[in-house]
Formats: sequence, C-alpha cells, structure tokens
Amino acid sequence: MTSQPRYFWEDFGVGSVREFGAHTLGRDEIVRFASEFDPQPFHLDEEAGRQSLFGGLAASGWHTCALVMRMMCDEYLLDSSSLGSPGLEQLKWQKPVLVGDTLHVRMTVTDARPMTSKPHIGLVRTRWEALNQRDEVVLVMEGWNMFRRRDVPAP
Amino acid sequence: MTSQPRYFWEDFGVGSVREFGAHTLGRDEIVRFASEFDPQPFHLDEEAGRQSLFGGLAASGWHTCALVMRMMCDEYLLDSSSLGSPGLEQLKWQKPVLVGDTLHVRMTVTDARPMTSKPHIGLVRTRWEALNQRDEVVLVMEGWNMFRRRDVPAP
Repeated sequence: MTSQPRYFWEDFGVGSVREFGAHTLGRDEIVRFASEFDPQPFHLDEEAGRQSLFGGLAASGWHTCALVMRMMCDEYLLDSSSLGSPGLEQLKWQKPVLVGDTLHVRMTVTDARPMTSKPHIGLVRTRWEALNQRDEVVLVMEGWNMFRRRDVPAP
Repeated sequence: MTSQPRYFWEDFGVGSVREFGAHTLGRDEIVRFASEFDPQPFHLDEEAGRQSLFGGLAASGWHTCALVMRMMCDEYLLDSSSLGSPGLEQLKWQKPVLVGDTLHVRMTVTDARPMTSKPHIGLVRTRWEALNQRDEVVLVMEGWNMFRRRDVPAP
C-alpha cells in the first residue's frame, strides 16, 4: 500500500474497548476446517459431538481463533500500521462453538508502550474475547501487537 | 470409535519427549489460508513479504498453529482418549515461517495430574515446539490437554 494507514500505535489507547464482527458458523465450514487441520471426531461428526464434552458438533478451537483473526483484519488490522505479533500470553477456549453459533469480538487495550530498541514501533497489549449470540465468552486471548507510530518516523 | 484408543492419560509421562511430523509449506496453501483468515499483505504477496519484518512471503501464525495441530492429531491425538483442551498458557511466534520451510514438532510433557472433580480424567501439561529444517524453533505453545484415564473407569 502506498497510502497511509488509518490506524497507528497512537490510536490504541489503554482502556479503549471496541466490539465488532458477526460470523455464523455453518456445519460445512466447521467440517472443512477440521478435516484439514483438526480431524478429531467431535469436530467432524454430529453424533460424536453429541457424545463429547462439547454436546454437539463443535468447531476446532483453532478455527475459532482463525475467525477472530479475520474479524480483527476486517475491522482495523488491514487499515493499520501493524507489523505482526510476537505471541499470546494466554488463550482460553472457555465454551464450545457449535453449528449455528454467531460470533463477534470484544477487544480491550490493556497496555501500550514504545519499543525500547526501536522507538518508531509501539507495542499494544490487547485482550480479545469472542462472544456468541447469548453474549457468552467462548474464547479469550491476550497478547501483544506491534504497530508503527504516527508521531515517530522510522529512522 | 468402539475400539479402545492406544493412548490414555497414563501414557503421557512427565519429562517424555517425542518428535514427529514433516510438513513443507507451499506458496498456494499459505495464500489460501491467509485469504480466508488472515489477509494481511505479508501473508498474501511475495513483495509485501520481502518488505516486511518477515523478509519473505510468510505463513499466518494461525496457519502454523493449525499445522501443528494436524501433526499432533496424526501422531497421537486421534488414537487417544483426548477430551479436548481448555487452552494455552503461552503461544510464541518466534520466527517467520516462509514458503518452502519444512516443519516438525517436538513435544515435551511438563506436568500431569488427575482432575480433582473428575478423577477418571487426567490433565497433561505439554510444551509443543515447531521447528524448521534448520532446527530453529519457530513456534512455542504450552498448555493443558484432558485425557480419560486407563486405570480409573468413568463412573
């Protein structure tokens, strides 16, 4: 991209909360993801799902993570100065995600600081929660993202 | 499955190490995953990848996680009494995964205990590392899995 992104490090204020996204999971996409990456019976077969702790055909936890990532991309990441992420400090699959569930994301900025070694880059610590149509939190992730800064040009 | 699985909680001894898997990432699968779940330019386009911190067209971190999951499934999970996972305590994307890299997994059992509330289920704490063809660790995950026990039948 040659144009300037809309969001830089300075735009992720500590304490800010943002809710976004809406994705309803169909049976076919759950089975397709699981067939490729996580072919455990409770992610492939309705009867196996019902007999599992999940109580129904359940999306792979990695599928849920990937869908949250897509909602993050569409909401802000693709129009930002993001440089990627070094990782997460926690990832909790709190409730099953079943066929027909509609997920959205609640994002809370919990910390932010410039990088010591590269002051034109800032770190943002974020908690992302995925919620279903009953506003139950199904997934919690906390971790860091790197963004270029608007106010400190690259050397 | 009506037959007994091969691996139960008792088979994951603390300190045991196991290496397995071999997956070479092609350009097309990197772009296909990223197009659906993580369409940031450095995951879609070679030139954007070269200009990024990754230094080349890089797989989405979630793609790497999903591939590790698949290698875990093929190595032991599908023939085990696994009941799923409550989550991870850490997830580090330590190095970029680029087109042509071949990944495998090193799994180390770091802790194990029966569940207090459900003694027929055991928890296993594991560190999974994904390594590339130069034996560089590209991904580290640590977390818990639940398995039924061989020696304590369900009530």
